[in-house]
Formats: sequence, C-alpha cells, structure tokens
Amino acid sequence: MEKVRLGVIGLGNMGSSHCHHIHVEKRVPGLELGAVCDVSEARREWAQQHLPGVAVYENVTDMYQSGLIDAVLIAGLHYDHPAQAIEAFEHGLHVLVEKPAGVYTRQVLEMNEAAARSGKVFGIMYNQRTNPVFQKVRDLVQSGELGAMKRVVWIVTDWYRPQAYHDSGSWRSTWKGEGGGTLINQNPHNLDLLQWMLGMPSRIRSFCSFGKYYNIEVEDDVTAYLEYDSGATGVYITSTGEAPGTNRLEISGDMGKIVVEKNQITFQRNRISEREHNRVNTELFKKPESWTCHIPVSSDGGEQHIGIMKNFTRAVLHGEKLLAPGEEGIHGLLISNAIHYSTWVDGWADLKDFDHDHFYELLQERIANSKVNKQVTQRVADVAGTH
Amino acid sequence: MEKVRLGVIGLGNMGSSHCHHIHVEKRVPGLELGAVCDVSEARREWAQQHLPGVAVYENVTDMYQSGLIDAVLIAGLHYDHPAQAIEAFEHGLHVLVEKPAGVYTRQVLEMNEAAARSGKVFGIMYNQRTNPVFQKVRDLVQSGELGAMKRVVWIVTDWYRPQAYHDSGSWRSTWKGEGGGTLINQNPHNLDLLQWMLGMPSRIRSFCSFGKYYNIEVEDDVTAYLEYDSGATGVYITSTGEAPGTNRLEISGDMGKIVVEKNQITFQRNRISEREHNRVNTELFKKPESWTCHIPVSSDGGEQHIGIMKNFTRAVLHGEKLLAPGEEGIHGLLISNAIHYSTWVDGWADLKDFDHDHFYELLQERIANSKVNKQVTQRVADVAGTH
Repeated sequence: MEKVRLGVIGLGNMGSSHCHHIHVEKRVPGLELGAVCDVSEARREWAQQHLPGVAVYENVTDMYQSGLIDAVLIAGLHYDHPAQAIEAFEHGLHVLVEKPAGVYTRQVLEMNEAAARSGKVFGIMYNQRTNPVFQKVRDLVQSGELGAMKRVVWIVTDWYRPQAYHDSGSWRSTWKGEGGGTLINQNPHNLDLLQWMLGMPSRIRSFCSFGKYYNIEVEDDVTAYLEYDSGATGVYITSTGEAPGTNRLEISGDMGKIVVEKNQITFQRNRISEREHNRVNTELFKKPESWTCHIPVSSDGGEQHIGIMKNFTRAVLHGEKLLAPGEEGIHGLLISNAIHYSTWVDGWADLKDFDHDHFYELLQERIANSKVNKQVTQRVADVAGTH
Repeated sequence: MEKVRLGVIGLGNMGSSHCHHIHVEKRVPGLELGAVCDVSEARREWAQQHLPGVAVYENVTDMYQSGLIDAVLIAGLHYDHPAQAIEAFEHGLHVLVEKPAGVYTRQVLEMNEAAARSGKVFGIMYNQRTNPVFQKVRDLVQSGELGAMKRVVWIVTDWYRPQAYHDSGSWRSTWKGEGGGTLINQNPHNLDLLQWMLGMPSRIRSFCSFGKYYNIEVEDDVTAYLEYDSGATGVYITSTGEAPGTNRLEISGDMGKIVVEKNQITFQRNRISEREHNRVNTELFKKPESWTCHIPVSSDGGEQHIGIMKNFTRAVLHGEKLLAPGEEGIHGLLISNAIHYSTWVDGWADLKDFDHDHFYELLQERIANSKVNKQVTQRVADVAGTH
C-alpha cells in the first residue's frame, strides 16, 4: 500500500477542519481523502462544494462498504465513536478516533476489544501529545529527573466558551447529545496528558457545578482532588466560565518543582533530593539548595492534528509506533467519568475498581430527567487554533 | 499614659525575637518591656543575660499581679493562649496574642467574650496583614475592581520544615503540645489573609496527610476545597514537605484575574465584565478583551511584627484602630479546625453551623491515642525572616 484512503465521519468544526488539511492543503503525505459522511444535508452540500472529487455519504455503513477507504477518522457525536469504530474494525478498516474515545467507559472497553480482535491500526486524536513541552515534561518525570512525585496542580481555566458556543448545536452541552460538559468536550486532551505524563490516579474526590455560568445542564466548573498509589496527590481545576483564565501545570517532586505556563518549562532543581537533605540536615529552617533551570524546548506547540494524522498514516503504511494508541483513550475517559461520578454520589470514586455500570445508570438518569429541548441551527466555526 | 509596659509570655523562637525588637533594638515607640515569663529555667537565665533590667517570672499570674505591666504579649504554647488572655483581661491588662488564637474554636469563643467584657485592647499577631501586597489585593477585591469572585487557588507550599525542626521541641508537631501541624503552626497567617481578603467560606472538604514526610503525628500535607455562599469556590494547598515549594495566589473574578507571586501583583483586567461580554457576544469562541496590568505596590513585605506592635501600642495609647483585632483570630482558626474536621470525618465541614464540641472531642481522641513521647531539649532558633 502506498497511500491511505481516509473516510471522515462528521463534518462539524473538527471534521471539516481535518478534511481541509488533508484534501485542500495536502498537509499529510500518504493520506488521501476518499470519502466523507454526515447526517446533515447542509454539511454534505458543504462537502460537495469544498471537497471536490470526494465521495459524500449520509450513512456510515454505506461509506464503510464503498471500497473507497482503507481507514476512517471518526469525528461525529461522542456517543457514536465506539460503535462506529467497532463497525469499522469489522469492515477491516483502520481507525483514528477523535477525542473523547466515548462517553462512558463501558462502551470504550468494548471498542478496545474490537480493536484488539481486528489487528488494525487504532489511533486517537490526542494531538496535544505532539506538543514538545508536554513530551519534555513526561521525559523529566519518567526519566527520574524530578524524583518521586509529591504533588501535581493543574489549573486549566483557559477553555473559555461563551453562551453563544453552547447554543451553537442542539447536541452541545447536553447529557443526551454530548454526555457531559467541559470534561467530555474540552478537557479530554488535558486529562490524557495528565495520565500520560504522571500515570493514573487511584481515587478521586471531585466537585462539579452544572450550569453555573451558562444556561446548560452539564458541568462548566470542576475541581478534582486526586490520589495516587505512590502517596502523591493532585488537584485538577477546569472551567469554561473564566476569562482570561489560566493554564498552569505544577509538578513537585523530591528533586524540585516543574512549572509549565505559556508553553515554557521552568525546573527548580534541588541540588540533592529533599528526602536526602531531610535525612542529613540538622538546621531547623534549612531548605535544600535549589537551582532555577530553564529547560530548552520548542514552544511552537508541535504539529498537533497534522502530526497525529502523519503518525497514523505512517503506522498504517510502515508500521510506525503510534504516539497516541487508541486503546489509551480509556485512561483519560476513566478520569473524566470518575470526576462526574464522585460529584454525583458526593463521595470518592475508586479508579482501580470503577463501577462502570453504576456510572452508566447515573448518566442515563440525567438523560432521562433532562428538560433541555434545544431548537437551534447548527453553527460550524473555523476552529483553527482553538483545540 | 505615655508608655505601654509590656509583659511577654513565652521566650521561645517568637517571644525572644519580640523581646529583642522591643528592648534591645527599641523599634516600637511607646512600648517598653516590663517583664517576661517562661516556665523554662534556661530561658529565664537567657532573659536575665540578654534583657537587662527586665523582671523575669516563672509564673504568669505573678507577672500579671506585679504591677509592672499594662499589657501582655502571649507567645507561649498554643493551647494556653485563650486561658492566659482571659486571665489577663481579668487583671485589667491589654492583650496582644500570638497566632494561633487558640487550638480549638470553643476556647477562642470564650476568649473573645472575656475580651468584650473587659473593654481592653485586644490584638492578634497577624503580622502578614501589614504586607502592602495583601492589603492591595484586599482593596482590589473589596472595592469591586475584580468583580464578583469566581475562584481562589492558593498554593502555599513554601513552609518547608525539615525533621530537625519537628524534633526541636517536645511540644512541637504533636496533638497534645500544638494541637496540629502546619495548619496550626505555619498556616494561621495565610488562613487569616484568605478570609481577610475574601470573606469566610461556608463549607470545606479537605484531605490531610499526617506524618507523610516526617516522623510526626500531625498533618504535614493539606488540600482543601472551599465553597462560598456566593457560589465561588476555592482550593487551598499547603505542605511543609515540599522544596523549593510555591507561594502563588490566584483569584479570578468577573473582571479578570489577580495573581500574587514573589510579592508582586498582576491583574489581568477584562475591559468589560465577563458576564456582560457573555450576554452580548455572538461569537462561538470569543473571550472578553483583557489587559495585563501591573499593580504598583511595595514588595518590601511591610513592617510585619514591628508594625503590629506599633499599631497595638498606639491603640492602647491613642485609641488607634487595630489592623488585626484579636476577635478576628477565630476566623482563621475556624477554617483550620474545619480542615482538620473534614478529613477526620471524611466528609463536609459546615462552617456556618460548625460542631465545635465534636471537633473538640475528636482532638481529645487524638491526644489520648498519641504514642509520641518526645525526649528532646528545646532548641530556640533565630527566626528573623522566617515568619
């Protein structure tokens, strides 16, 4: 195989952006747009105008059976990601799924099983894994430079989304349409990076507010306390209601402290480990000597979506290792589900023995009790630089 | 009265430092050191050597009845602060109490009642209220410049204290001797500033670790989630086990965001309020316009302990308004008690209907079950610049 022919499901903000990159700008060597699919007639008409020569489908199965594609990029409704992926694997297609992997872990576990059975390439659009800054932080942690982690505090309140955004689609910001608010829409990237850099927390106690800043039923404000098996703790804070907001990640460890802000890394490095200092020191108020180190790293953000699509294409064509394997989508989703769950039950969420079925029931209750009935025309925006 | 004759109870780190400032350096106009009191013979000998001409007592009541003092600065064991203050008021003395006001709110409520009955001047050593930076933040919040508060995140992990510190006194870092760890020793300043700037939270859910980093029985690691009646939320994080640690306060409001770090204030000010922007905006991803404003303020830290003692002296002599009235000591202590309580019961602490008696019982249980039996010689350190 010399080229991968891709089908794209969903021509909303993200799907249409991906199509543009592939078909119009031709930014992914070896990847061709073979077909697209959307339930909306308006979006299909858009495709016919803007994506000349590309087959357009209303129905996913028809596209899968067309013989025009080798792989599919799933960028439709969150709830449908797993089922559409499972069906794609059954049709012998490779799959690149947009985030989130799904809405509830139960369906994502099934997707991962189908992927394993198929033997096909399975990637997830965790484009922020291409950011050299987060790659470097992961390196500093996993190489042991930071020493044993003590605490992580990530404030991610720069996902501002005004009411106009929430009103821009009938499915947006609803339990039935999206399965959650900012945790399931904007934060999957950050929650994935969190576990990718630092590993999975073992339990979570969270505090979400629902419709605090907007006329929506889902969460727009989140504080979560995390505990790790190692004894380390963490706090994860996010909101779509704060402006200008903050994106500041701080990780403290035995060897000092890493702060990431404005795509730059500062490492305050202890000359000897704090634990060793504590063992030998005899002075009442003495800290270990600490050096402020500016870590050299590109702040250009990396190749983002293009980088993920290039890597996926090379994985299909040449067996290159995936930067973001699809099977790993469940980790960030489990954190997300656990944050919802803890608030819903006003208690702890145990991630090592998560009650996937109870979560699903509680989500269904919220869908059943929803009073939202949005009558809006979907608006598709130019999302360059927003995700 | 032209001069205030002060008695000082407790010649440990803080008490001896205060005596030095008053008696040797004569840095507080109108304040004279009339007498000192300590149960330790070694400390009384120190006083006789270093504080020439000052009467030295072993017993508090003897000093109160000596006729040599008009006011008392209480810097002994935390548990004794309220009883010593109450007795001082009964002897017609003015009182300046070191932080914390006491260990449990029940005893502090009694102290406040005694103060009110006496009509005497009652101050508390919240020296960080003299810091122009926190005064300015309070001004920005209370004047409405920041708009309605949405969130506060204060990371206070720069209170590093090695094992040598915890081992430096038999009472240190024990339930019986101090009544807690970093919440009751280092953090009273920050907890007071928090409520002084932003008002009291209404409920708290906290997560403390006890003896996580040191061979101590009390807390050395704290994460607390705060809720305010207004709907605002907060996170307060502190530890004595992290180095180099962080002191970063972030307050977000309708008009933007204030960040305090390294004794400097940055105010990212929205041109119009976020709520108004949200009402009129029609674009899907648009934030309000925001300006980065550097707020002019002295970063010298203010007069600290000297400033509090000057203010207290002028209050006694001339009726000047207190910057830190003693009656306000209960607010920070209630937050501190609530943080302990929430972790102990693994549930919410309600600050508006706090169960003072239940807290007291749970504290007594910890004292009764303590296995600590420290046999150490007290070490007194030069604390210049550490508090």
